[in-house]
Amino acid sequence: MGTQEEPTVVDKEEEEQVVNPWEVSAKDGGKIDYDKLIEKFGCVRLDQSHLERVERLTSRPAHVFLRRGIFFSHRDFNEILDAYERGDKFYLYTGRGPSSEALHLGHLIPFVFNKYLQDAFKVPIVIQLTDDEKFLWKNLTIEESCRLARENAKDIIACGFDISKTFIFADFDYVGGAFYKNMVQVAKRVTYNQAVGIFGFTGEDHIGKVSFPPVQAVPSFPSSFPHLFPGKDHLRCLIPCAIDQDPYFRMTRDVAPRIGYQKPCMIYSSFFPALQGESGKMSASDPNSAIYVTDSAKDIKTKINKYAFSGGQDSVEKHRQLGANLEVDIPFKYLSFFLEDDLELEHIRKEYGAGRMLTGEVKQRLIEVLTELVERHQKARAAVTDEMVDAFMAIRPLPHMFD
Amino acid sequence: MGTQEEPTVVDKEEEEQVVNPWEVSAKDGGKIDYDKLIEKFGCVRLDQSHLERVERLTSRPAHVFLRRGIFFSHRDFNEILDAYERGDKFYLYTGRGPSSEALHLGHLIPFVFNKYLQDAFKVPIVIQLTDDEKFLWKNLTIEESCRLARENAKDIIACGFDISKTFIFADFDYVGGAFYKNMVQVAKRVTYNQAVGIFGFTGEDHIGKVSFPPVQAVPSFPSSFPHLFPGKDHLRCLIPCAIDQDPYFRMTRDVAPRIGYQKPCMIYSSFFPALQGESGKMSASDPNSAIYVTDSAKDIKTKINKYAFSGGQDSVEKHRQLGANLEVDIPFKYLSFFLEDDLELEHIRKEYGAGRMLTGEVKQRLIEVLTELVERHQKARAAVTDEMVDAFMAIRPLPHMFD
Repeated sequence: MGTQEEPTVVDKEEEEQVVNPWEVSAKDGGKIDYDKLIEKFGCVRLDQSHLERVERLTSRPAHVFLRRGIFFSHRDFNEILDAYERGDKFYLYTGRGPSSEALHLGHLIPFVFNKYLQDAFKVPIVIQLTDDEKFLWKNLTIEESCRLARENAKDIIACGFDISKTFIFADFDYVGGAFYKNMVQVAKRVTYNQAVGIFGFTGEDHIGKVSFPPVQAVPSFPSSFPHLFPGKDHLRCLIPCAIDQDPYFRMTRDVAPRIGYQKPCMIYSSFFPALQGESGKMSASDPNSAIYVTDSAKDIKTKINKYAFSGGQDSVEKHRQLGANLEVDIPFKYLSFFLEDDLELEHIRKEYGAGRMLTGEVKQRLIEVLTELVERHQKARAAVTDEMVDAFMAIRPLPHMFD
Repeated sequence: MGTQEEPTVVDKEEEEQVVNPWEVSAKDGGKIDYDKLIEKFGCVRLDQSHLERVERLTSRPAHVFLRRGIFFSHRDFNEILDAYERGDKFYLYTGRGPSSEALHLGHLIPFVFNKYLQDAFKVPIVIQLTDDEKFLWKNLTIEESCRLARENAKDIIACGFDISKTFIFADFDYVGGAFYKNMVQVAKRVTYNQAVGIFGFTGEDHIGKVSFPPVQAVPSFPSSFPHLFPGKDHLRCLIPCAIDQDPYFRMTRDVAPRIGYQKPCMIYSSFFPALQGESGKMSASDPNSAIYVTDSAKDIKTKINKYAFSGGQDSVEKHRQLGANLEVDIPFKYLSFFLEDDLELEHIRKEYGAGRMLTGEVKQRLIEVLTELVERHQKARAAVTDEMVDAFMAIRPLPHMFD
């Protein structure tokens, strides 16, 4: 910890904004300052050259989340691309803490992006369901955490992952063997004081919290999956996730070389804003702050019309004159995540920004886009059987994972 | 923690003597004061009534370690005996941290006593090899810790455990599933501050140490062994071990009822003294401080004659006049552990204490006793094959565990 490359998080009290795995909040309810976050965490902005390399190496357009800067920051992504260019494959690792039954749109983002990367680079992925973490942090029983993990796995599978290249695991089922050995290897290399510096634990936190970071660290190491990567201890790992998970991977990257492993590489997304505005992530405790993948067309219509914060002006006259403030407009922001057509988005940007398009029209377009997306997801999820969940979660080799 | 029943350990600095799983040292190199230890830890002395109950319930004489007060203290041992009297069986749990290749006589004590209890009460035993703990605390690789665990398992098996009632497991192999779930249950109920109070961790200790106590706690719960005790979540557990392990089980007993489990019951031994005198446990770093089960007859003879601290007087004349100080005499102390004949021990006590017997004679008798014991152990250990180790460590039901 605390090396030049991996600066330590400063105490919460001194911070203007708080971004860690358990809290995302901007100063005075404002917007997250991603430049400051990048500077504080010590990661690097993605730029046009990364996009061009990705397009060249995969022979397909970069994903909308890359083109729009939603995945905006990285650590050593170049090394993954360099290796890939030389013919060396890698594997993807992402995860989810299964704290709620239904996922909202923000939860889908890493999975949609990982599915794209899996297809584009033809690489395997491991997906961790941290049911142990949620049991430790929330008022849940182990049984309920395990049940939520399986429910969430269905939503993840519905994102279209290729079963021949995908291993989904829940910690309560999977921790043990080589995975546990790696946990203990990591735990031996992080002092309590360092953990406090990175995660902000206090003496009143239970030791379950202190014990958890190695669990999220070790899927970064291929040897944690002996059934997947035997003899491939130096396979590189790319972790696409939201930037609030960086503390785990700063720790992991610090420890990795000291236990003879490769550092994982990171590619980080910004946060998907709440319907009410862009001061942080969506809140699971307020169902009206987010669109859920279980919402009906009517729910979506009501939520967007009623709650989506508009950057448009108070009156039509004023709006025609001044145009919408796209910086704070949630309907436009949501479209920039999920409207795939670049030309149409650019058209809306110009027309809405200039006041020629009204909020109602933009909301209407967003309702169409999200209704279609959510209905497609619901259809896919309804087709996911318990047997498919078992199959994705089976501890098995993936013989065609790089085909 | 810190309930009436289970007082917290006071800071080292304030203590006259230090007794914890990693350090046993008396004040100014003197003797451990077991009365003070009992008072500090909040456990209870065993008395004659326990011995009589044990003899009555098992229809055999109490073990020499009970008769001589070597196992001297307990927590809720009465509850085990009450339950047994009603016809309810229990299971035994003990363990070893495999930090060295060869065991010394002190290491054998819990296993000799557990083997006696297994036979006398006809109950199953689980034996934990904490290879993870030794990796975390010592400068060992995981591979070396695992190798030592298997080597130590051979010595344990050589103590005569009944394979139909014995499950030996090493943490690096066994942690996972129900065992891991119980670890996380315990970890959620102990704050860092409580762990510091119990174990004396500092901020510079790594989080592996902070994570470990639940690993030693959960073999106290039958549900950690679903292959052994399915549907027997309320089976009582008796843990015979040295009293320095009490911090782990104070913690365990505090947490148990809060997660719906029975508290384990404890029966504690005092420490087997070093050859040089009774200021603590034997030291693995000084081979001349202990008799090892690998020592030759010649080694034993040399070590006892050269290093065993004598309570006899400087000259034969003075000795005949004053007698030996049995309180500090190591040959007599060792005989009180390993000479089974009560009458002969009483004879030596009288004759040596009165000066009619000389140190040389007592040492000679000790050499005979220990040579016979060590040679018997070596013979038994030589007969332990790798297949037997695999068989004792196989994850399997024990269908005749209570027969």
